[in-house]
Amino acid sequence: MTLTDSPAVNRAGARYGDPDFVLGATSPVIEQQLRHRSVRAFLPAPVTEEELQAVVAAASSAPTSSNLQAWSVVAVTDPARRRRLSDLAARQEFIAEAPLFLVWVADLDRHHRLAERNGRPLDATAYLESTLLGVIDAALAAQNAVVALESLGLGSVFVGAVRNHAEEFADELGLPPHSVAVFGLAVGHPDPTEVAGVKPRLPQTAVLHRETYNASEADAGLPAYDERLAAYNRAHGLTGAWSERVLARLAGAAAMAGRDRLRGILERRGLPSR
Amino acid sequence: MTLTDSPAVNRAGARYGDPDFVLGATSPVIEQQLRHRSVRAFLPAPVTEEELQAVVAAASSAPTSSNLQAWSVVAVTDPARRRRLSDLAARQEFIAEAPLFLVWVADLDRHHRLAERNGRPLDATAYLESTLLGVIDAALAAQNAVVALESLGLGSVFVGAVRNHAEEFADELGLPPHSVAVFGLAVGHPDPTEVAGVKPRLPQTAVLHRETYNASEADAGLPAYDERLAAYNRAHGLTGAWSERVLARLAGAAAMAGRDRLRGILERRGLPSR
Repeated sequence: MTLTDSPAVNRAGARYGDPDFVLGATSPVIEQQLRHRSVRAFLPAPVTEEELQAVVAAASSAPTSSNLQAWSVVAVTDPARRRRLSDLAARQEFIAEAPLFLVWVADLDRHHRLAERNGRPLDATAYLESTLLGVIDAALAAQNAVVALESLGLGSVFVGAVRNHAEEFADELGLPPHSVAVFGLAVGHPDPTEVAGVKPRLPQTAVLHRETYNASEADAGLPAYDERLAAYNRAHGLTGAWSERVLARLAGAAAMAGRDRLRGILERRGLPSR
Repeated sequence: MTLTDSPAVNRAGARYGDPDFVLGATSPVIEQQLRHRSVRAFLPAPVTEEELQAVVAAASSAPTSSNLQAWSVVAVTDPARRRRLSDLAARQEFIAEAPLFLVWVADLDRHHRLAERNGRPLDATAYLESTLLGVIDAALAAQNAVVALESLGLGSVFVGAVRNHAEEFADELGLPPHSVAVFGLAVGHPDPTEVAGVKPRLPQTAVLHRETYNASEADAGLPAYDERLAAYNRAHGLTGAWSERVLARLAGAAAMAGRDRLRGILERRGLPSR
């Protein structure tokens, strides 16, 4: 499929906030991906059991390191539990509102239980590498789930704030040792009245390097991007350009809402990150 | 779309190696995801510039924590460089064979350069949380790329072995401090003569938990899965069931091919994982 097949909307241009950016190759799947936006307002209609199983089948279809499948997902629908999880995750109201909250778990406990049943060592899981492997497996599975749920007309938003109080979160979900909630995903039918759009991303020149990393070429487009994002933010009731928001978000531990304690928490949960 | 629209092949059943598993909801996108397999044999035809840009546009469309976009990708096509990278990554021949090798980078250096230009602190990046954030951003972007490239008829395989010699890998790609290659992705046109199939995954009952984590229910399906995977492996020239392979892979540092040194390497690269 070439862009001439769908000349009406330049979705790649919208993705980068740059109408001059036009793709020379695309597909219906890519056009769906280009339309992605975070959904933070949901209708009360539930996600059906059939939809949940289809989304998890897509997650299971993602690549996984050495087929270790070091992830699990906890599907939370109980309103009282969603309310408690919302309270732990920066009180984001949409967690209580969305009919389904999927918590993606880096899970090495499945492998520990197996090793214990067989009286075998599992010393690799003491290393940071194994924690990263679980986090990567969970992320690949979850992103496949996002693409799948959007193909069913559902919407979602990731919630990194599940790491703000990782221990309380684990307690609430009954997570075993050697596992941790990596992020949540609030899922439901998008409320069509939500004011939201496709947020412009850094230009391709900023993220795509050829043969070797080129910092000065990557940064050349940042001033233009700052203007695009500031304009988007103004149009959506937000403030600030990209640079200002990055510098505020990463200034130090004070802006981390508890996530500066994550390494110690992982250590206590049996993921020691040696 | 319901399954009755495409009764010919039960792709969800193939995904789980369980013909009795049938989806009650699906979509063309999900059917594509269910067909995913790792491709390790490629035709010599190049990936075009138009295809690369479409795949990166899909990657840019993935969610990213607080819009930090803490990832970059290095597109390597030079045959001599692909050969050297292959030598560093467990000498996997398909890295040298595939026309395109995409190296996905957890990149907090973009933010460090910004902070330096503005004389501002960036202390949050000293914490494990920020390393995880970059790894998650890279993984979400890369999985969107995998879905996109498959929609264009291309195939791919992830390469975690880029972490075997993470420092040499960074040197070869000229990666700046505060960044690390998370994994590679060999990309190209699948060689139709490759003997490979859809590898069965753990049953949904093993990875999907309801309301809270249930270890005994999750593990009940493992014996049946071990039989399914052993049968798949026998049919594809491999040996062993899932349990045996997991226990060998995670026994200890000896089977980690250098990745047990990753935490120290990250520390030296300015990602100290405090």
